Amino acid sequence: MNIPAAAAASRRPPLMPLDDALARLLARAAPLGAAEDIDTFDADGRVLAEDLVSALQVPPRDNSSMDGYAVRAADVRPGQAMPVSQRIAAGHAGEPLAPGTAARIFTGAPIPAGADAVVMQEEAVANENGTVSFAAQPAAGQWVRASGEDVRRGQIVLERGTRLSPASLGLAASIGFARLSVAARPRVALFSTGDELVMPGAVPPEAMPPGAIYNSNRFFLRALLARLGCAVTDLGIVPDSREATLAALRQAAQGHDLILTSGGVSVGEEDHIKPAVEALGTLDLWQIAMKPGKPFAYGQVRRDGGGESGDACHFIGLPGNPVSSYVTFLLLVRPFLLKLQGPHALDVAAHGLPAHFALPRADKRREFLRARRNAAGGLDLFDNQSSGVLTSAQWGDGLVDNPAGCTVAPGDRVRYLPFSELLG
Amino acid sequence: MNIPAAAAASRRPPLMPLDDALARLLARAAPLGAAEDIDTFDADGRVLAEDLVSALQVPPRDNSSMDGYAVRAADVRPGQAMPVSQRIAAGHAGEPLAPGTAARIFTGAPIPAGADAVVMQEEAVANENGTVSFAAQPAAGQWVRASGEDVRRGQIVLERGTRLSPASLGLAASIGFARLSVAARPRVALFSTGDELVMPGAVPPEAMPPGAIYNSNRFFLRALLARLGCAVTDLGIVPDSREATLAALRQAAQGHDLILTSGGVSVGEEDHIKPAVEALGTLDLWQIAMKPGKPFAYGQVRRDGGGESGDACHFIGLPGNPVSSYVTFLLLVRPFLLKLQGPHALDVAAHGLPAHFALPRADKRREFLRARRNAAGGLDLFDNQSSGVLTSAQWGDGLVDNPAGCTVAPGDRVRYLPFSELLG
Repeated sequence: MNIPAAAAASRRPPLMPLDDALARLLARAAPLGAAEDIDTFDADGRVLAEDLVSALQVPPRDNSSMDGYAVRAADVRPGQAMPVSQRIAAGHAGEPLAPGTAARIFTGAPIPAGADAVVMQEEAVANENGTVSFAAQPAAGQWVRASGEDVRRGQIVLERGTRLSPASLGLAASIGFARLSVAARPRVALFSTGDELVMPGAVPPEAMPPGAIYNSNRFFLRALLARLGCAVTDLGIVPDSREATLAALRQAAQGHDLILTSGGVSVGEEDHIKPAVEALGTLDLWQIAMKPGKPFAYGQVRRDGGGESGDACHFIGLPGNPVSSYVTFLLLVRPFLLKLQGPHALDVAAHGLPAHFALPRADKRREFLRARRNAAGGLDLFDNQSSGVLTSAQWGDGLVDNPAGCTVAPGDRVRYLPFSELLG
Repeated sequence: MNIPAAAAASRRPPLMPLDDALARLLARAAPLGAAEDIDTFDADGRVLAEDLVSALQVPPRDNSSMDGYAVRAADVRPGQAMPVSQRIAAGHAGEPLAPGTAARIFTGAPIPAGADAVVMQEEAVANENGTVSFAAQPAAGQWVRASGEDVRRGQIVLERGTRLSPASLGLAASIGFARLSVAARPRVALFSTGDELVMPGAVPPEAMPPGAIYNSNRFFLRALLARLGCAVTDLGIVPDSREATLAALRQAAQGHDLILTSGGVSVGEEDHIKPAVEALGTLDLWQIAMKPGKPFAYGQVRRDGGGESGDACHFIGLPGNPVSSYVTFLLLVRPFLLKLQGPHALDVAAHGLPAHFALPRADKRREFLRARRNAAGGLDLFDNQSSGVLTSAQWGDGLVDNPAGCTVAPGDRVRYLPFSELLG
């Protein structure tokens, strides 16, 4: 039988642009809504579930930003001694400043009533008779931190949906929040499929049977999920059979918000994920116009007793190739999991950097090439861009996002996504 | 008494360039040496204590990167049917390929002896009589992933001193490492000083006494230390007294590698840190030519029984102002703690970006301005660059590193350090 090449090509499903896939995925990611109250110390990386409104001014009062002397600026005569009428340490309130005098003051201590400036001690001379002299005329307001300079009473200091960083925790603490309401951790059930997979430690390298490979995806997926604040249940490697896959999905749907698998989403006969998810819910297999990472599945698995009522668990099937799995996680699953935790700015800050490489052959798909910044400020590519080669993701410090159909010549400015932005 | 301004100025200690301070600090940070053996699943963010050498090839054998048919390319005649002589699933070894036949094959399955190419199933037609036809002539090697393409036997896959990322864990797992030897966590004792400090939760905002402020530094410092793999002992707020400071230092030196404090390192009389550390060891007070963050202290505190023998704990004193404390942690303490865990590339990847702001007044010190990338690809500055204002570090997504004595005009290219690089 003779088949024209065109006919063969037409049997391939059309590829979906990555941005469309992301938009469809995010449309399904309704925020989970559940919140929990936790210690501010434990909230790094979590997502704030309420606006944080300040009940106070920070700093609460005008205070000194230097060790030195609080004065009324107009009272100072450069070179003339002034009595030191009091001493105000941080944490202590002073008396109103007697006219024509200076108050010894320390960083953080409140400015006494009547004073309007601080002279730093390096610009003052403490005389033996207990007076002080200043070299220069101070300006009103100098070295005074104004009340409310950091935060005003009633101000929303951190908005609901903010992903908390170390600075956020400090800011929340500075207005007195010892506990914070944060979005519940997405509960993710993770499993891998593939009879060829062996867990490291189960079989030593020299005894690996033919065709067997170590499972590596579970290791980076668990770490990536943990970085995104997820609570992970690891269901291990599921054998390539319909029964085992159905059982794993039924178990995973209970008490989880997302089932994440790697492997089993391409169109091969050996993939049991598709019929099993369809038997328990719905599944869309997408062929995304990206490289690496073409096959991707999104679906929902009904929970026991969920029936048609809509009580279902999200399902995402990643490709089995390590680099495909890694890159599709960063570009699709990461924003999905952040959105489950609340409203976010999901854009990743990309940079335009010069290519110090050539890409003479354009690809039909949008490519995400593992690259590294060099000392000259340009980008080098890892030699082997195969999707099976995880060394590229270790070697690289980011991805070059190259549009479909585009070649790259050395010196061209390309879009670079740092892993530091995608991994946090 | 009349003091010329020049004389007053000369009494200030000379400022130390930041790069000198960093070099001095790193010279003291001898790697701790201790290692521990942990589960690969738990190693994200830790530092590898040994070279990881592969005992196998990844992939172990030539295998298919597509679902399709394995063939000897030269045997194929486009449009002519070939018998399908076997079926090879992932995880199963096939038989040698009978000449003139095709083997049904799935992604990841080993290429049978005698085959040298894979035709993807989208470019094949399975006929009803069990034969298969191909539209085009395959090229030898197509859709075959070569043995060792990812990793060769004997190759150092991850070097000692590598900070492990999710990709590293996947890579280690792919060559069979279920456990990894990593540098021990630096043990850090943390305390704050300052009578003005109150813990959030201890006193509600409306009841805060005059001069009191909430302790915020402990919150971001603990989170930053955790991100760097440290084991933190939080000793709380130490009262501003020599006795309390000595007691805290003695306690902290036992069983810790670093004592980290905030507050108490400027030259004020109320600072008890300096005499207390000097009584128990050595201390250098540095005035670093950076803004924010001028005062900084490095020292060592002898351990009980350590005597003059050199058994001592590192001491670092950060400034008390929140932003000063935050920025000096990122630029000085972070590389120090990484170096304690082993050899590293400590450089932070900076970017050159256009300023969408003006800085008409040059500062004598190198400035680290809190900035944010805008939609136009430029940098905006936070309005209030005061060192007491932690909102700037929350609002910003990085620091503009502006050299001493330099003004900035809109459009100038400035050095930008993303927080994503500094926080990981």
